[in-house]
Amino acid sequence: MTCPRAPSAVQAGRSMWVRCALWGARAGSQLQSGVLAPCRRHGGAASYSASAQASRVRALIYGSHGDPAKVIELKNLELAAVGGSDVHVKMLAAPINPSDINMIQGNYGLLPKLPAVGGNEGVGQVEAVGCRVTRLKPGDWVIPANAGLGTWQTEAVFSEKALIQVPNDIPLQSAATLGVNPCTAYRMLVDFEQLKPGDSVIQNASNSGVGQAVIQIAAALGLRTINVVRDRPDIQKLMDRLKDLGAEHVITEEELRKPEAKNLFKNTPQPRLALNCVGGKSSTELLRHLAPGGTMVTYGGMAKQPVTAPVSLLIFKDLKLRGFWLSQWKKDHSPGTCTPERPQLRRKTDMELSSEGRAPCWAEDVQAETAKAHKRECDSWGTTVVLREWSFQSGLGLGSWTGRFRPITKGLKPF
Amino acid sequence: MTCPRAPSAVQAGRSMWVRCALWGARAGSQLQSGVLAPCRRHGGAASYSASAQASRVRALIYGSHGDPAKVIELKNLELAAVGGSDVHVKMLAAPINPSDINMIQGNYGLLPKLPAVGGNEGVGQVEAVGCRVTRLKPGDWVIPANAGLGTWQTEAVFSEKALIQVPNDIPLQSAATLGVNPCTAYRMLVDFEQLKPGDSVIQNASNSGVGQAVIQIAAALGLRTINVVRDRPDIQKLMDRLKDLGAEHVITEEELRKPEAKNLFKNTPQPRLALNCVGGKSSTELLRHLAPGGTMVTYGGMAKQPVTAPVSLLIFKDLKLRGFWLSQWKKDHSPGTCTPERPQLRRKTDMELSSEGRAPCWAEDVQAETAKAHKRECDSWGTTVVLREWSFQSGLGLGSWTGRFRPITKGLKPF
Repeated sequence: MTCPRAPSAVQAGRSMWVRCALWGARAGSQLQSGVLAPCRRHGGAASYSASAQASRVRALIYGSHGDPAKVIELKNLELAAVGGSDVHVKMLAAPINPSDINMIQGNYGLLPKLPAVGGNEGVGQVEAVGCRVTRLKPGDWVIPANAGLGTWQTEAVFSEKALIQVPNDIPLQSAATLGVNPCTAYRMLVDFEQLKPGDSVIQNASNSGVGQAVIQIAAALGLRTINVVRDRPDIQKLMDRLKDLGAEHVITEEELRKPEAKNLFKNTPQPRLALNCVGGKSSTELLRHLAPGGTMVTYGGMAKQPVTAPVSLLIFKDLKLRGFWLSQWKKDHSPGTCTPERPQLRRKTDMELSSEGRAPCWAEDVQAETAKAHKRECDSWGTTVVLREWSFQSGLGLGSWTGRFRPITKGLKPF
Repeated sequence: MTCPRAPSAVQAGRSMWVRCALWGARAGSQLQSGVLAPCRRHGGAASYSASAQASRVRALIYGSHGDPAKVIELKNLELAAVGGSDVHVKMLAAPINPSDINMIQGNYGLLPKLPAVGGNEGVGQVEAVGCRVTRLKPGDWVIPANAGLGTWQTEAVFSEKALIQVPNDIPLQSAATLGVNPCTAYRMLVDFEQLKPGDSVIQNASNSGVGQAVIQIAAALGLRTINVVRDRPDIQKLMDRLKDLGAEHVITEEELRKPEAKNLFKNTPQPRLALNCVGGKSSTELLRHLAPGGTMVTYGGMAKQPVTAPVSLLIFKDLKLRGFWLSQWKKDHSPGTCTPERPQLRRKTDMELSSEGRAPCWAEDVQAETAKAHKRECDSWGTTVVLREWSFQSGLGLGSWTGRFRPITKGLKPF
């Protein structure tokens, strides 16, 4: 039993997707609902399309780089044809990460061909699979294998190799943010310094998505964390929250600059690893607190200021400055692997870690009845906004890029 | 035959040094002039002193850290006693390096106990050796094994292990500056990136002592160099001189900042190693020209500004920032070894390289008749001032620390 040949690439944009079964797929026990019919044996690279029931895809698209508030548009698309190696995915939730904003602005190391759908991360549910797809089946939850997939759309057809299956019994928010922040945190903790349980790590932006993942994963690895955050009126709540996640010390940027800062964590070994998401003065302070020979890994620049390293710290303290970019890491490694390579570390995958860890304080409920309660819990510290069920849910502290993104979220109605 | 026991440490300061032979050392074929008598067999750790003919040591001493012009004094000392493991050395020549100035100012990673004799580098001739000294004999040329020895004195008694023998048939200037600049250049070229012949290196302060050593040693290793210097009226002379040493490209800081700079060395592979002695903007420019994944090694900060690294270059270009401090390197390795450890590089010692290389343009003749000619050759680019035969010979461009040191040199008369 075979499906009709897929339309050409030119046609694909306006084809409509239907399940192959509509044309009379074999109703056998091996054919689950949503599985497209098998490929023709001698069809070579032929792929199968589905082109009946219209499916309006809603997507956040940008045609040029610039201020997201100006260049992003909500558009209706038609679903592409599903080839033999393709997977039809209904997106369930997708976060807005700073790197998404940077990509739209054109300030990112990897830029998609335009026009492009925004979003690099998210979780979707498989609706149907092409005849050559072997790893996935309808109902599975999937996340992007790499950056650039375009997750800010209600549904899409992706290549099987562009997707990684994740368990569908973990919180939706965790699944939606599994591929970037926890993986970034984990690789940075294990790839730059050989730390052993009891060693310490210092980081700034500790209430960011990565920061919270660092706290939880470090605690799981037996590492002690010194967590720097910006001061705010209700700092104690934030401190309590991060300590609840596993943070050993939480200290403000201002406190860290004082000479007596060392006394605050004098019983903690001097950190050999610093994780910098801010740049500018904040990163210089991290360097000052690093142990001789230690490494600072920069993975973000929220302050929009360069990393500034006193010459004496490079020469006399032998400090090392490195950078980490998850997209490059994923290019250089097998898709979906985020496991430790060093035998002295506990062998935990990011999946395992995520299922143990708690999701950050999510903003998904802010437009619902629970908004008020949620606001009490989350408003004083960083949150990750998740596009869930395709309503933009925003309004809480989004860090330094809030101002730029908020107009977009205001301009959009729930789908 | 034994020498009298050395005076106590308290007495040593005012003891006078004589050769052990004055007390009747055995006149045998194995005893060269200047070799102290053998140690007592059962004398344990007894050392031998010499205390007849007065020897007035002249030394540049500082009792507190600060502006060298204010804290350095020329004083007369008496020679310490020569213990069994000691060596009496007459200093022949000693350079003034930026690190010497930093040490006097107190801005250095290693600070001596005060009062201290200035100078970390230089060459001396062995006058006499203690009875347990096995590696050295009178007439040998020696250089300090590590920083902090205090070379700005006419003669001194040092421990044998504090000295390294060097060939005495190389130019005096080369010998006097063998231990710091060529070794720094060599280690930086081989310890951070695995370069192969044909690869390129970019550096700033290319006319400094280290810079010139880099040019010569890189050329000997088959590496191509892009050399950045500050602009000056007779820049062409400097360019010619550096190219004569083996530089492939010489470019000013200003030219390097222009977008068209890349065209200047478009036929040279993008450098994977940058050597930074300046800091500030100059180091940022080096970073911009590094190949992805490359390393910038900072070994000085002449601009007195921190190293500033754009976050994007750390993250998206995976650039690495390191530091190099020769004093630490020497602590961590066998004294006197500056040989390559990587089999793919030609096995050359710093000694061999130095004897092949040319000494930098020296300032030693500026007070002599040749001053004018020397000035023509050297004035437009950096020179190293050598304290030779204990007359201060200065007056040429000493880089950014000239202004501070010149008053000292003016205030001193030739010994």
